Amino acid sequence: MNKYSLLQWERLNHIPAVPKILQDPHLITAVPDGQPSKTKRPEITELFPFTSQLPPLAFIKKEGQTHRPLRIGVVFSGGQASGGHNVIWGLLSALKSLHPHSALFGFCDGPVGILNQSYVEITNDSIKPYRNQGGFDLIGSGRDKIATNEQLQLAEQTMNVLHLDGLVIIGGDDSNTNAAILSEYFKKHKCPTSVIGVPKTIDGDLKNGDIEISFGFDTAAKVYCEIIGNLARDALSAKKCYFFVKLMGRSASHLVLECALQTHVNMALISEEVEAKQLSLQQIVDSICDMIIQRSAKGKNYGVVLIPEGLIEFIPEMNQLIRELNQCYAEQVLLEQIEQKLTQESKRCFKSLPEKIQKQLLLIRDPHGNLQVSKIETERLLIEMVEKELASRKFSKFSPQPFFCGYEGRSGLPSLFDSQYCYALGNTAAVLLQSGVSGYISCIKNLAKPVETWEPCGIPLTSMLKLEYRNGSYKPVIEKALVDLKGATFAEFEALREEWLLADDYLYPGPIQFFGPEVLTNSITRTLFLGMNA
Amino acid sequence: MNKYSLLQWERLNHIPAVPKILQDPHLITAVPDGQPSKTKRPEITELFPFTSQLPPLAFIKKEGQTHRPLRIGVVFSGGQASGGHNVIWGLLSALKSLHPHSALFGFCDGPVGILNQSYVEITNDSIKPYRNQGGFDLIGSGRDKIATNEQLQLAEQTMNVLHLDGLVIIGGDDSNTNAAILSEYFKKHKCPTSVIGVPKTIDGDLKNGDIEISFGFDTAAKVYCEIIGNLARDALSAKKCYFFVKLMGRSASHLVLECALQTHVNMALISEEVEAKQLSLQQIVDSICDMIIQRSAKGKNYGVVLIPEGLIEFIPEMNQLIRELNQCYAEQVLLEQIEQKLTQESKRCFKSLPEKIQKQLLLIRDPHGNLQVSKIETERLLIEMVEKELASRKFSKFSPQPFFCGYEGRSGLPSLFDSQYCYALGNTAAVLLQSGVSGYISCIKNLAKPVETWEPCGIPLTSMLKLEYRNGSYKPVIEKALVDLKGATFAEFEALREEWLLADDYLYPGPIQFFGPEVLTNSITRTLFLGMNA
Repeated sequence: MNKYSLLQWERLNHIPAVPKILQDPHLITAVPDGQPSKTKRPEITELFPFTSQLPPLAFIKKEGQTHRPLRIGVVFSGGQASGGHNVIWGLLSALKSLHPHSALFGFCDGPVGILNQSYVEITNDSIKPYRNQGGFDLIGSGRDKIATNEQLQLAEQTMNVLHLDGLVIIGGDDSNTNAAILSEYFKKHKCPTSVIGVPKTIDGDLKNGDIEISFGFDTAAKVYCEIIGNLARDALSAKKCYFFVKLMGRSASHLVLECALQTHVNMALISEEVEAKQLSLQQIVDSICDMIIQRSAKGKNYGVVLIPEGLIEFIPEMNQLIRELNQCYAEQVLLEQIEQKLTQESKRCFKSLPEKIQKQLLLIRDPHGNLQVSKIETERLLIEMVEKELASRKFSKFSPQPFFCGYEGRSGLPSLFDSQYCYALGNTAAVLLQSGVSGYISCIKNLAKPVETWEPCGIPLTSMLKLEYRNGSYKPVIEKALVDLKGATFAEFEALREEWLLADDYLYPGPIQFFGPEVLTNSITRTLFLGMNA
Repeated sequence: MNKYSLLQWERLNHIPAVPKILQDPHLITAVPDGQPSKTKRPEITELFPFTSQLPPLAFIKKEGQTHRPLRIGVVFSGGQASGGHNVIWGLLSALKSLHPHSALFGFCDGPVGILNQSYVEITNDSIKPYRNQGGFDLIGSGRDKIATNEQLQLAEQTMNVLHLDGLVIIGGDDSNTNAAILSEYFKKHKCPTSVIGVPKTIDGDLKNGDIEISFGFDTAAKVYCEIIGNLARDALSAKKCYFFVKLMGRSASHLVLECALQTHVNMALISEEVEAKQLSLQQIVDSICDMIIQRSAKGKNYGVVLIPEGLIEFIPEMNQLIRELNQCYAEQVLLEQIEQKLTQESKRCFKSLPEKIQKQLLLIRDPHGNLQVSKIETERLLIEMVEKELASRKFSKFSPQPFFCGYEGRSGLPSLFDSQYCYALGNTAAVLLQSGVSGYISCIKNLAKPVETWEPCGIPLTSMLKLEYRNGSYKPVIEKALVDLKGATFAEFEALREEWLLADDYLYPGPIQFFGPEVLTNSITRTLFLGMNA
């Protein structure tokens, strides 16, 4: 029996294109490129005395270097994103090319593997079946944090036991904040292990002036766009059904915005706009109903609506309700008494929701007792409320269908972009480690240009930190980059969406292609393109 | 703004490969190839005196033919299937090549367009944007039937008003039964319009000794396989979640079987087997729970289960319950009295179901008052029952996630196989029409071989009919081809599934490819391959 699908096999044997400067890691080194940003942010300097003075790093050519073998650890942290295996492959191959006796160890099932010293050595042979493949299954991932003093000590112990010269943390905003903390802790405690982060998340919310996009966003957007395009074509063909499609993406609406620009669906809700305009749930429901009735007047009783996963947290009255419910949990209020504990306004809001959603709000809790917003079936909530509102308007030609674009976008075969980007991020991490620096995130600039001209560099993790009030105290965090309502991507959406509402200008992106015309295989997201060309 | 996505554009400009014999329709004609099958089925002969004596037709070369211009109508009937636009494109281009003055008319929104004379002329220009594209949106589709005498008369009238030489009905088993009835009716009433059917359905249940596969199955299977593979990789990476994936496909489990063979998920339920073994709902739930507990013992608290859309109809006690509920509706029993009307056994079965599903069983009705089985959320039903059973076994490490592979598989960009198959089916229909025959289904044999060697032919629709008892009387129907538990496809599944249950031998088929190695772009389903090579 075959161990691989035909396409898996083809991709296993594909060598990603590499930025020109990374083509021979022997010949490059990392050098300061600009000033550290400490002066502007004294509160971070205070918390990170050892790592807040780091300058950004650029890579330059340097002949005649000799390198010693390195022992490096690597870990996946948080949810899957396509391309993770290529980060490890790129890391391993650059490490081995810098010194054949270097060794790479993968911690199993996420940061918990660091704490309990659970690891495997990753070799050229063991990475082989994972080249250009989706998922994180080579070593698994997990959501544990290394946060308490005891955990930091355990991590240090593991570094010492394994004699690690470096640790690469592949994760999102929280995980890279964790990398910054670890790096600071190791330096403070004279643990010689360098820490390097890699920007991962399908949500696209880990970006800033330096990081143009996180890996995994490109593939997830393309997987969702294929599905959404197919649903739009189906709606247009059968002419009798509305698809309410919720998309993964946590708080940020980047994936919804990207998919809207690529498919031209009739309506896409953007959480950030809902919050900025202080829209109520009923106003959102009304706007959907208005569209449905307007389209029906044109003989169109079908359409597609995109809904960001985090929507309800951005609706003021829902946000208030959720905060009160979380508070009730913290105070261990009995389930049947919760309703009485709510403010008048939140009680009214709660009672206006469908019973199913009320139940979900009360019951779907994470281990800390906080509501798991991502598990609330917002697409069904909106359907029920739209049904009710349409009934009150005596409109009956509404046949809805919920859909959730979620897990299938996190572990798909990485697009050519993500394959190349991740391989280069791995290479870059290796060069940073070889340069002996710590507290940096592996970064590639110029991503909207051809791979050959991409510019690998190192950005100090602390330069991305700010203080945020969380759970009663100020904590250093990497701020989530939400959709910028003044940015070019939202502007393009804003300019076009009126037209999409009533017309059926759907585009059908179709499945990700790995072969064929370069314009197709090397296509990048509109988000990256507009972000870089604004 | 672009009107097409990059891939749409590439596909628009692609010319499908054509079977050698169809390369010049001028030079072929249809000739009898074997005996009519009337003697064996006297009951069909009786109902179809004009069309039950037709012989199968083969295509042979014949030089020096002259052709007159034809006026042809075409209609989509029933749910979408990828490739429909190519049937029309293939039909139009062959008709125009046979005689440039031939004209093609598309009836709008399904058979209802025939009844109310709603149509558009389809020209080379109007088909252009639909070449190799998914969906049925050029002319739409619908589920109406042409069944009553009045409707048959209306259809005849439309044929006469438009002076149609032929009518092509693109549909599934029911629609092709309808084509047989129309053909008989037209002949009986001396209406000169030929009727030709085309085998369409993603469900894969319109096949027999002659029809190797219906169009749309290939694309749907591949779209679902991409998603299922992604979910499996995600499950294996995060190691904490079970995906319960329901697949479209109506009664037949062909899509589930195909996807299981292409992805090696841990468990795939096959309705036909459930019925053959007379499994109860509890037995199914038990088998899932057994797997979950066995896998957990190996440290695996994750996995993927595939569920056919029609499952519950094949579970004996559920089938009985559904029949009783349908009967209650026919007798207009009040909703609150239904439970009392049920037999003891059905009442027990009903009460054992989750409340949500009870509601769905009572409320989700088609216009005839029959339960719409496809809308019952079987994936959620099984999750709830598995949760309950596991709780009673004191097992708590179960985190399920429902998923429905449905509409996104019906209207995607047709795979290369479906693009070519459909174009050839359209060509074949044109040759049959030019040959002046009626009551045939357009058919291509040898589909598992290279396109050049495919063998177009015509199969009498009546040869596929048998009598079935429906709603109090015998009706001619094309029998749905369910999964053959003695066939090669099921045998392969049976030989391997034990291994998949506990191992994680997942394959990841990835997205459909249109460029690259031929072995990849021209891949066919396991169902077709094994069906042809058994």
